Amino acid sequence: MTYCVGLKLDAGLVLLSDTRTNAGLDNIASYRKTFFFETPGERVIAIMTAGSLSVTQTTIARLEEAAEDADDANSVLNAPSMLRVASIIGETLARTRREIVEQHRDLSQQASASMIVAGQRRGGDMRMFLIYPEGNFIEATEDTPFLQIGEHKYGKPILDRVVRRDTSLADAQKAVLLSMDSTLRSNLSVGMPLDLSVIKRDACAISLKRRIEEGDPDFMKMSAAWSAALRDSFTRIEV
Amino acid sequence: MTYCVGLKLDAGLVLLSDTRTNAGLDNIASYRKTFFFETPGERVIAIMTAGSLSVTQTTIARLEEAAEDADDANSVLNAPSMLRVASIIGETLARTRREIVEQHRDLSQQASASMIVAGQRRGGDMRMFLIYPEGNFIEATEDTPFLQIGEHKYGKPILDRVVRRDTSLADAQKAVLLSMDSTLRSNLSVGMPLDLSVIKRDACAISLKRRIEEGDPDFMKMSAAWSAALRDSFTRIEV
Repeated sequence: MTYCVGLKLDAGLVLLSDTRTNAGLDNIASYRKTFFFETPGERVIAIMTAGSLSVTQTTIARLEEAAEDADDANSVLNAPSMLRVASIIGETLARTRREIVEQHRDLSQQASASMIVAGQRRGGDMRMFLIYPEGNFIEATEDTPFLQIGEHKYGKPILDRVVRRDTSLADAQKAVLLSMDSTLRSNLSVGMPLDLSVIKRDACAISLKRRIEEGDPDFMKMSAAWSAALRDSFTRIEV
Repeated sequence: MTYCVGLKLDAGLVLLSDTRTNAGLDNIASYRKTFFFETPGERVIAIMTAGSLSVTQTTIARLEEAAEDADDANSVLNAPSMLRVASIIGETLARTRREIVEQHRDLSQQASASMIVAGQRRGGDMRMFLIYPEGNFIEATEDTPFLQIGEHKYGKPILDRVVRRDTSLADAQKAVLLSMDSTLRSNLSVGMPLDLSVIKRDACAISLKRRIEEGDPDFMKMSAAWSAALRDSFTRIEV
């Protein structure tokens, strides 16, 4: 499994993904799940992926190939809007998934994937989409400033409680890290290291890209402080 | 959906269930999901249910019918051990489910249910089981003092952090209520009122049975205090 969460706030976009991939419980590996397409100052697009690795890798490879060709109508770096970017990614994902499902037909195996796409092009609005395996998508709005894919339930209560559109980028990073921390503790199929990224409003470029490794002292400290704070709050609450 | 959680602690058993039942999103009703079989001082058995209402109601009705007949070999009030109680309930559940699935065959509809069974008979140990739709079961142990059925993920992080076998019954009630509170906030298909029950070790009787209605002032106060404590802890944590 996977856990990826994206926040679209007034101040910018905050994205966090884990890196654990498994084929069964006895075949576990680390793969990056956050990818960028960027022309700094002009446009930035971040994609986070969940699902079958063969589907997500092939989809990203196809998007990268198209983006290298300045004349390709399917280049996310050429698309005239973030909405068109979401369409291109949705179409590429759906086509890739269909091909792989077709290859697997004799095994009646499933292959599926979903993605969070977030970004901004100069002169346009910041936008964030959740792309479904079939290629259709939904968009984060003012009412619902976050999107999640993969193992999303453990980490939702903290987001429900603290994330609003006017949350600061510093608080937003804390919120996604604590949301991930709850997920890591409760589900073995989500694992370190983590990839944290921040895209400030109107920067049209990646403002922060941080890989958080297993045993990262800051993350461990935050995780321990949060556990202690929860236990302390628990003790103080009266029923 | 449903959320039921049971704790088996040194001090006793603590059980909490919601009451929301839905057939689709436009057909929502309240049904009790906690049931008792009791000969006070001799034996007490609590059952919490999740899944298709037709399966759980018929299973409970059959168990009640058998328990009314003192000679019935399938009476949970006669069974020589809690292990046998779990077997009887598992067999009744599996048989009922099979019959209903058979009735539904032409519709290719699913019907499934699972249960948490907890109790003690005089002279025996307290035990708690999770019964699967197929009738097999697992048991709560010292290492894993809680079992959950239904929509279990939202409420697991708090249990993972605060519940240990030596947790007091007062803290345990707080823990299951906060676990339910997180679930209620994040998932519409779990709803008030709630049924909270406590069975003290060696009482072999229901020690506490409390129905918590929508708008219950104590529950609302606890919920608000927990939200405030979480937000306060969140603010104080440094990344």
